[in-house]
Amino acid sequence: MIQIDGGVTAAKGFEAAGVEAAVKYENRKDMALVYSTVPCRVAGTFTSNVVKAAPVLWDRDVVENSPYAQAVVVNSGIANACTGKQGMDCCKAEAERLGKLLGIPENSVLVASTGVIGKQLPLDRITAGIEKLAAAKAATPEAGLDAAKAIMTTDTVYKQIAVQFQAGGRTATMGAMCKGSGMIHPNMCTMLGFITTDVNISKEMLQKALSADVVDSFNMISVDGDTSTNDTLLVLANGLAGNDEITTEGVDYDAFCEALHYVTTYLARKMAGDGEGATCLFEAKVVGAASKEEARILARSVVCSSLSKAAIFGHDANFGRFLCALGYSGAKFDPENVDLYFRSRSGEIHIFGNGVACDYSEEEATKILSDPEVTVVADMHMGKAEATAWGCDLSYDYVKINADYRS
Amino acid sequence: MIQIDGGVTAAKGFEAAGVEAAVKYENRKDMALVYSTVPCRVAGTFTSNVVKAAPVLWDRDVVENSPYAQAVVVNSGIANACTGKQGMDCCKAEAERLGKLLGIPENSVLVASTGVIGKQLPLDRITAGIEKLAAAKAATPEAGLDAAKAIMTTDTVYKQIAVQFQAGGRTATMGAMCKGSGMIHPNMCTMLGFITTDVNISKEMLQKALSADVVDSFNMISVDGDTSTNDTLLVLANGLAGNDEITTEGVDYDAFCEALHYVTTYLARKMAGDGEGATCLFEAKVVGAASKEEARILARSVVCSSLSKAAIFGHDANFGRFLCALGYSGAKFDPENVDLYFRSRSGEIHIFGNGVACDYSEEEATKILSDPEVTVVADMHMGKAEATAWGCDLSYDYVKINADYRS
Repeated sequence: MIQIDGGVTAAKGFEAAGVEAAVKYENRKDMALVYSTVPCRVAGTFTSNVVKAAPVLWDRDVVENSPYAQAVVVNSGIANACTGKQGMDCCKAEAERLGKLLGIPENSVLVASTGVIGKQLPLDRITAGIEKLAAAKAATPEAGLDAAKAIMTTDTVYKQIAVQFQAGGRTATMGAMCKGSGMIHPNMCTMLGFITTDVNISKEMLQKALSADVVDSFNMISVDGDTSTNDTLLVLANGLAGNDEITTEGVDYDAFCEALHYVTTYLARKMAGDGEGATCLFEAKVVGAASKEEARILARSVVCSSLSKAAIFGHDANFGRFLCALGYSGAKFDPENVDLYFRSRSGEIHIFGNGVACDYSEEEATKILSDPEVTVVADMHMGKAEATAWGCDLSYDYVKINADYRS
Repeated sequence: MIQIDGGVTAAKGFEAAGVEAAVKYENRKDMALVYSTVPCRVAGTFTSNVVKAAPVLWDRDVVENSPYAQAVVVNSGIANACTGKQGMDCCKAEAERLGKLLGIPENSVLVASTGVIGKQLPLDRITAGIEKLAAAKAATPEAGLDAAKAIMTTDTVYKQIAVQFQAGGRTATMGAMCKGSGMIHPNMCTMLGFITTDVNISKEMLQKALSADVVDSFNMISVDGDTSTNDTLLVLANGLAGNDEITTEGVDYDAFCEALHYVTTYLARKMAGDGEGATCLFEAKVVGAASKEEARILARSVVCSSLSKAAIFGHDANFGRFLCALGYSGAKFDPENVDLYFRSRSGEIHIFGNGVACDYSEEEATKILSDPEVTVVADMHMGKAEATAWGCDLSYDYVKINADYRS
């Protein structure tokens, strides 16, 4: 498997566009289209929030009940969540309009929205945006990049990736883009993620691979502990790579899963590192845990802890906060047996062991914690299970962004 | 029941002191003593964190195994958590020294600490502090106030209260003090709370009343979602009110529980409103829930949400965030049936109902949200259960305080 340039248009048969529709933002691209020239198998995972945005309900229905999908239309600025029947009608109107323009059935059109909750979408501007998208779509890297930029909200960088892998003697390609910066605590974040691939794979195996993957990728990141109403991750597979259809586990399925995990982990880390107000990527790695599930619980607890995040922002080796977060995670362990380490490109130090602080240099600890990517490693000495979670530090800018997000 | 002036020295037979011991802070009181002239029944609740500070382990042992307790010695500045055997030895040395000075057994002495985790207590300064405390103790309101001030860390106000109630034809008094501002998410917060009463009650009924009470008082507050390693709440009852011992449920037990709940709720709200960096008390009241437990889960989820807390700081009627927090709480409900209201001394408005935003005035909403005490009310329309949780807004100062707490 190799990483290549590009994003959602890297795989054969995929086109994209990003246009200005003034849904809420002015003078920037705020609507995106992903389109496949041929029908696609589709798989999806959605927010676990009881309050689900209208586009989540629409997409879940398409993923479960439509024979195939062929396009995704996305807007940023307004989430179309908590919008009742009018919100659902808007999804349908979007799918109808785009379907007509592209000559595909409305139930093959997926929709996604991200932004403020509780406001209705301006259907006239959305419709005008859809017309621009249909006219602008192209299979070029530039078009893919336009789409990746259009879906951003408080994101400071666009997020896309593409890889190639071998399946059944053919070279298959996978491209992806995502957005997500605040309200990020995917259980399945508002993260939106769109993965396109030309591999030939059955719907069942596509959903299986995606559902298994998110547990250790997107579901292991947290910016603020708030699970969005709009989290959506979709994979479209159009089969144009020409490999024999992947219908069972085996070498080809494994190659697909490896590519998928590379893409999802890359994007998950990108999202965490670009969390609202973040000055660094904060990684928690738990090793030696009794079980995989406990390892995940412990790692997530550390990256979700406000006090741990504030310590990372302050480059402060206040290790008690990390240990405290492990302690209230819900997992059982003996604190006397835990070893804690801080690690970054600047080095690694052992900070806690045998139940007490190690004899470490504060200066060295501060240097390690001042890197743009910081890892706290906890060795539980209970078993062989490992898990990694990703978050970011808690800064003044997080508060600033969220105290007046709507204005 | 009536509220009276005073704190831990209000009840008969209780003395207190607060002195400067330079444990970590300079030029301020940082050690406190609470002492009863006669032996007390004692009950306690402690942190649910797997990582328990040495004084928590010491006190749990006293509460469970000692026939009675008679004194509590407290220091602020250093938490004596993650300190291994040396930390436990320090607790024992404190109890021994104080016991000797007061002429009481070491296993009747409770100890409590709050502050930075992972540092060892300076035993020489602690010992010198204990000697000052034993010399300074007095039954006066001033001595109680000194104690309440000495236990503060990042708290901006001291927290104490006293009430009187009738039990068995006698007037009983209950006094209390607590501290807590950061690392506050009691599951059983570092909150420390000390309640003194002269009521005559059996140990069993005392523990029963305390354990039942914390579920709806201290366990319903959150500043930052971080459950401390040191949370400790102790009640000392010395029987000097002269009522017949309360050994069963009944009128006297109910009067005691009412007084206890008044005291704990008062202190819990004080703690939440004085959360690190807080500019206001943020209350979430859930009504019409299917069960008490679901009501608690829903209310807690709202006050714990970073995005909701940031919206409150910004006086921003971004109601979608509150609804979002209800939605990921884990409780099941139909968003279409939820009514949301904002309430404060400036008025009340209906902000969300029938699945969509109400036609409210942004100006009025902002006015209501600009009060020092703000309540979000959620009516679930599912049953008759209610619960209230207390937190605070998320401000720049929270980040500031915690990015360099140790320095």
